Amino acid sequence: MPKDSDNSDDRIPPRTLKGFRDYLPQAMLAREGLVETAKEVYRSYGFAPIDTPALEYLEILAGKGSDETDKQLYKFTDAGGRDVGMRFDLTVPLARFAAQYAQQLGLPFKRYHVATVWRGENTQRGRYREFMQCDFDTIGTESATSDIETALVIHDLLAKIGFVGAFTISVNHRGVLNGLLESLGLAAQATQVLRAIDKLTKTGPEKVAAEMQATAGATPAQAEQVLAFAALDGTNNAVLEQLRPMVDGSEVGEAGLARLTEVLAGIAAAGVDPARIKLDVSIARGLDYYTGMIYETTLDADPDLGSVASGGRYDNLAQMFTKQRLPGIGASLGLDRLLDGMEKLGMLPNVRTPAEVFVPLFSEELLGPLLKLAADLRSAGLRVELYGEAKKLGKQLQYADKRGHRVAVIAGPDEIEAGECQIKNLADGSSTAVPMASAADEISKLLRGN
Amino acid sequence: MPKDSDNSDDRIPPRTLKGFRDYLPQAMLAREGLVETAKEVYRSYGFAPIDTPALEYLEILAGKGSDETDKQLYKFTDAGGRDVGMRFDLTVPLARFAAQYAQQLGLPFKRYHVATVWRGENTQRGRYREFMQCDFDTIGTESATSDIETALVIHDLLAKIGFVGAFTISVNHRGVLNGLLESLGLAAQATQVLRAIDKLTKTGPEKVAAEMQATAGATPAQAEQVLAFAALDGTNNAVLEQLRPMVDGSEVGEAGLARLTEVLAGIAAAGVDPARIKLDVSIARGLDYYTGMIYETTLDADPDLGSVASGGRYDNLAQMFTKQRLPGIGASLGLDRLLDGMEKLGMLPNVRTPAEVFVPLFSEELLGPLLKLAADLRSAGLRVELYGEAKKLGKQLQYADKRGHRVAVIAGPDEIEAGECQIKNLADGSSTAVPMASAADEISKLLRGN
Repeated sequence: MPKDSDNSDDRIPPRTLKGFRDYLPQAMLAREGLVETAKEVYRSYGFAPIDTPALEYLEILAGKGSDETDKQLYKFTDAGGRDVGMRFDLTVPLARFAAQYAQQLGLPFKRYHVATVWRGENTQRGRYREFMQCDFDTIGTESATSDIETALVIHDLLAKIGFVGAFTISVNHRGVLNGLLESLGLAAQATQVLRAIDKLTKTGPEKVAAEMQATAGATPAQAEQVLAFAALDGTNNAVLEQLRPMVDGSEVGEAGLARLTEVLAGIAAAGVDPARIKLDVSIARGLDYYTGMIYETTLDADPDLGSVASGGRYDNLAQMFTKQRLPGIGASLGLDRLLDGMEKLGMLPNVRTPAEVFVPLFSEELLGPLLKLAADLRSAGLRVELYGEAKKLGKQLQYADKRGHRVAVIAGPDEIEAGECQIKNLADGSSTAVPMASAADEISKLLRGN
Repeated sequence: MPKDSDNSDDRIPPRTLKGFRDYLPQAMLAREGLVETAKEVYRSYGFAPIDTPALEYLEILAGKGSDETDKQLYKFTDAGGRDVGMRFDLTVPLARFAAQYAQQLGLPFKRYHVATVWRGENTQRGRYREFMQCDFDTIGTESATSDIETALVIHDLLAKIGFVGAFTISVNHRGVLNGLLESLGLAAQATQVLRAIDKLTKTGPEKVAAEMQATAGATPAQAEQVLAFAALDGTNNAVLEQLRPMVDGSEVGEAGLARLTEVLAGIAAAGVDPARIKLDVSIARGLDYYTGMIYETTLDADPDLGSVASGGRYDNLAQMFTKQRLPGIGASLGLDRLLDGMEKLGMLPNVRTPAEVFVPLFSEELLGPLLKLAADLRSAGLRVELYGEAKKLGKQLQYADKRGHRVAVIAGPDEIEAGECQIKNLADGSSTAVPMASAADEISKLLRGN
């Protein structure tokens, strides 16, 4: 609540913390639109929403976390003397949640969670210390169906956002790579090899080969075979064919290849355009975490943006909290990155209002009839801002112009007397007089036509 | 990310902090539904979304806050040595935001903000330490239009949520009460009088009269006149008439009464049923904060629940941060209280899934066609959960029963061969065979009929 202060010396400069952001209407309208689309797609597959506290016991969040995680955690001692922290992702809270309620929820359990997380990142790297995550996961099943659905959800999401036919979901299976390494006798050095391969697009094959020899003790021949594997290209079916001999004899490799084949077939059976799905054996995200299928998604118009929706399958979500084994699969939408991409591609409308329709207040005397007009337009499903003060019409229309309303409905005393109004298209300035009773229809027609 | 731990001795007990809540799907579906309805109504009046950080500089939040606020603040020193706090309401962030961007945004500025806030409340009083606020405000105007709209937004909100014709918005104007006190010579003791009157419904007129005499130094005759004022009842117009002589000669009282009259007329002009709006001169919320119109909303079926949507007009939002005077008006929806009320009144469906439709996986061989069936139903706008594993049909239907899906679409090999499926109404167990191509229409019909 505002405090008594008329002494300017006492004023506090309004500012935000480094790495934290205010969302003004234009940015927030875009973010809300994206989040709502994501939720709608998640729900359309039966994923249910959950939420967890922003603050958790520090031991829950820190667990046996890495030094990196620990350094980034916002943590403090609360007034009751408890060591607490602010969540830094939605995965640890999901693990705690699943351990606590698995019995009550029943398995499999499909949930989505859209929430803010905090990390004390180095802001010099352009990172934010507060951002929103947008995750969906299926827990308690190893079914191919949930692997397939993960790709379908990402597909529907990108299509609904507006990228129809203009994105690529790259898929891979960690078992295929592990199988190759097993065949090559490099299974024990998998982490080092994966870490090297992960840099393939960034640093090129020579440096990756050198790193594999340095860190994984690979021979030049082994490094070459790994690179040949990572360079596999062609149609998904052609790549599957080439992989078969490479993993031959490795149980984990053959199982991975079988699952990958089944998942690709399932995605196609659901009706997804094959051009949207690329089997890419070089992707190996989440080095210590993912164990089965993995997914990355790039925008065809801006692949350098990086993955805008990623995830994969994991063996056991919540072993830190329960002895119950909880395998699962999940992915998340990269909201900030996607919004960056949409902005660059001109996909975000230049508006600062959710209301398409603007009604100027012609004069104080007309407030009653104009309140009624606005109410009627809202009943017809339109979003309508009625200006509050009877300023000059030009001033009011300037306000509408700044906000980005698309249509103004103008009614002075003569129009109201005659049961009419002017519908003004704010994009081109054209105007039509229509009976008040058909105003909603006319506006809807105009908005559809725009 | 899950950490390596197979040693049960290392396990961390999954639990949440006192005063913090997990939202399981059933509760979260209800909360999300409510928040989305609120946002949709806010948008329909041209209120635009904003967001601000959860963490702010402590000086911004603490300002010249009361000891009470200060005690409840979650505050700490961050890794960069800054004193920071977690926001405890959305009003201080709005004040900081408005001071920072007023120039850029232009006035009037209409915003909504739905976000989590934290207060180290005494949980013994049944309070939560983390909860969501759902505010809308119009800043930078003193127009009657924005006063009227505040009531209209609350009205549309309650109606859209499902309380059509079953709620009461109580309105008052602080100037009317202040005018009376001025006429009585009690203007300087307004706070004490208001504090006493605020307890009228709880403690009754005698105790309130005694308190006014004790704390405000009112004479018994003055106390009686204040109580007569607070007891005014009848139609809104009748009360307005009775108020006229009571504030006669007081500038602030006459202005307040004029505004109150104008606001009631505007609300009626917009088409609101007069039975929904009650002029109640005894409400006096926000003792040190509100200066003009005030609003409270009760559910007719459960008035003891207290106000589920409240707010009012304030003189100057952001004087702590800027010399620019920013008058405004706003209100907020009490999400927790409203959800409590809806639960008590049986208005929350007993479901744990957003998907109406359940498709069992009859056999692994049918995964392809059933993925296609589910995709087709989704394209028709339905929300569809396909079960992932080909367990016994009974087991799968048990799962659907536990979740609360409303319709199952069952297709075995014979049905798929024949291009048909069974549509099973899970409420009554009845089943109909329909051609696959008309499944979506049949399900939609059934869902509408339920």
